[in-house]
Amino acid sequence: MPVGTQATVKALGQQDLKDLGARIILGNTYHLYLRPGTDTIAEAGGLHRFMSWDRAMLTDSGGFQVRSLASLNEITEEGVLFQSHVDGSRHLFTPEEVMRLEHKLGADIIMAFDECTPYPCDRAYAQESGERTLRWAERCVKAYDALGRKSETGEFQALFGVIQGSTYLELRDRFTEEMLAFDLPGYAVGGACVGEPKAMTWEAVESITSRVPRDTPRYLMGCGPPEDLAGAVCRGIDMFDCVMPTRNARNGTVFTRQGKMSMRNAKYAKDFSPIDHDCSCYTCQNYSRAYVRHLLHVNEILGYRLTTIHSLHFYLELMREMRNAILAQRFGAWYETFQHRYLGEAAVSVTS
Amino acid sequence: MPVGTQATVKALGQQDLKDLGARIILGNTYHLYLRPGTDTIAEAGGLHRFMSWDRAMLTDSGGFQVRSLASLNEITEEGVLFQSHVDGSRHLFTPEEVMRLEHKLGADIIMAFDECTPYPCDRAYAQESGERTLRWAERCVKAYDALGRKSETGEFQALFGVIQGSTYLELRDRFTEEMLAFDLPGYAVGGACVGEPKAMTWEAVESITSRVPRDTPRYLMGCGPPEDLAGAVCRGIDMFDCVMPTRNARNGTVFTRQGKMSMRNAKYAKDFSPIDHDCSCYTCQNYSRAYVRHLLHVNEILGYRLTTIHSLHFYLELMREMRNAILAQRFGAWYETFQHRYLGEAAVSVTS
Repeated sequence: MPVGTQATVKALGQQDLKDLGARIILGNTYHLYLRPGTDTIAEAGGLHRFMSWDRAMLTDSGGFQVRSLASLNEITEEGVLFQSHVDGSRHLFTPEEVMRLEHKLGADIIMAFDECTPYPCDRAYAQESGERTLRWAERCVKAYDALGRKSETGEFQALFGVIQGSTYLELRDRFTEEMLAFDLPGYAVGGACVGEPKAMTWEAVESITSRVPRDTPRYLMGCGPPEDLAGAVCRGIDMFDCVMPTRNARNGTVFTRQGKMSMRNAKYAKDFSPIDHDCSCYTCQNYSRAYVRHLLHVNEILGYRLTTIHSLHFYLELMREMRNAILAQRFGAWYETFQHRYLGEAAVSVTS
Repeated sequence: MPVGTQATVKALGQQDLKDLGARIILGNTYHLYLRPGTDTIAEAGGLHRFMSWDRAMLTDSGGFQVRSLASLNEITEEGVLFQSHVDGSRHLFTPEEVMRLEHKLGADIIMAFDECTPYPCDRAYAQESGERTLRWAERCVKAYDALGRKSETGEFQALFGVIQGSTYLELRDRFTEEMLAFDLPGYAVGGACVGEPKAMTWEAVESITSRVPRDTPRYLMGCGPPEDLAGAVCRGIDMFDCVMPTRNARNGTVFTRQGKMSMRNAKYAKDFSPIDHDCSCYTCQNYSRAYVRHLLHVNEILGYRLTTIHSLHFYLELMREMRNAILAQRFGAWYETFQHRYLGEAAVSVTS
């Protein structure tokens, strides 16, 4: 899912996203609650109508942002009291309030309110916080049911539970079992991809993917590097979101099948070939490395748009490739080829 | 002509410009010479290929920028010695050098090198400078002929002369007569629209439009407000360029048939109507004032793009309307209606 934090995927228009084949994008409840305000979006008829996006959409719960962006946050059983990073105003997010906000925003998939534990996190806190997240999930489910499992405009919303447990496998195992008892339409791995060693990420992932029913979507929150997307799909994950392709693109770093490229590099000043010869994206079909490098060098908006289009195309194409390989029952072969190509020969031994 | 200073019309892509019906855009020789460099663009096969723009293009001569942007400029009979506003490096623009640069850039219309006098400008300097601009024009024509009147890639380039004379009508009249002797494919009014009273702008315009042959393009450089475009067309002008629609749009001010609107205004926060109900642009067909206002408020790139699309549509539609009215021999009636609508009742008496 391309990330559209403030009701726009940065540097792109909605038609760009459709042209890229994006079928779902993510919006951030915390940001939209603060600006333009959940009530404004509800008055517009929901987030889809507000931003003219007629494909699927997911909203997160704000649980990550109240910890990472807001200040002076205070976590109690009731919820999280925080100060806005925009104007310092004080707000309280509770499971019930977040369900009400996501009901107003009206995304197709909504996330339960959770506390995202940082890394490192001691065992006692991981247990205390993860148990609270389960109690919050129960309150979320009650509020969700009370709202008829529907958005304010009457459309079905799928509530996903977020499973925490930090790097403690026995906690992950137990929290997954308890979360599965809510019988939700989907489940997410939370509190991973926050700086922990990769082996620990995979432990957390497999703890969940080995338990969640086969036909139920599994979502690894905040996972960014292409090789990690592939590694996570290999372990049973279906969905991802990350600002990595879009944020890196605006900084000039793009992803290709051969690895990353820094498009601000002076060596591209007179390089009139496309970013990637094998790429079918709009940028590579129409513009050269030299032109993109020039635009970034002189801070022109079109530069950010062209790099973002390229990198999102790369990510969405990567997901399409994996989907097709799974359907054709040749994911293993695909994965080996991907690793050779993307990470180089040396990397293959790591996963063999 | 939408202004594409650095080989891009700010906030837009080339497809946006095509969708808007833009048939010609402007590039700035001064900026392109400094970054990415004229040689880089020549190696790319010219500006059209460098930026993937297959419609018409005009490059200015840099005469305006070396005065307005560069520092420590020194004007001699030879040319203008200036320091780059980017890195302070020293450069000399002569008529011959500018012709060589525009030959390399390869636009369809190229402007002769001139000195754009400021307002106010004393008569002695206006005469001295304007006479030098004429001698420079003669040198430009010689260099242009020596280059075969063609771009480096072999395409015909139309050289336009720029007529100066500041606010002195007898100078304007004389310089026009002398410039016409070069029998060029087009002529521009230079040194107007630089802050002088409107009546003086119109004097300068009519001095030129009354003398230039009927079928030869007349271009009023730097003219921005919609009412001035209409007033200038009324007086025989065919072509314009200005950053006003695009720069204002990025600041949040858009143009409509009813006048200007500041889209950052809080009163639009919950206004779910389009910027202009009667507008057929992509922005008005798909997005609300509230969405555009939100994007601008939170500094999202898409906000700049949507306002730019709207305002350029307004300008290009204004030009199309005037073109059609002239062809239908009903420009007078069109002009009166425009003034009622755009400036309100009070304004009509000014031109009657």
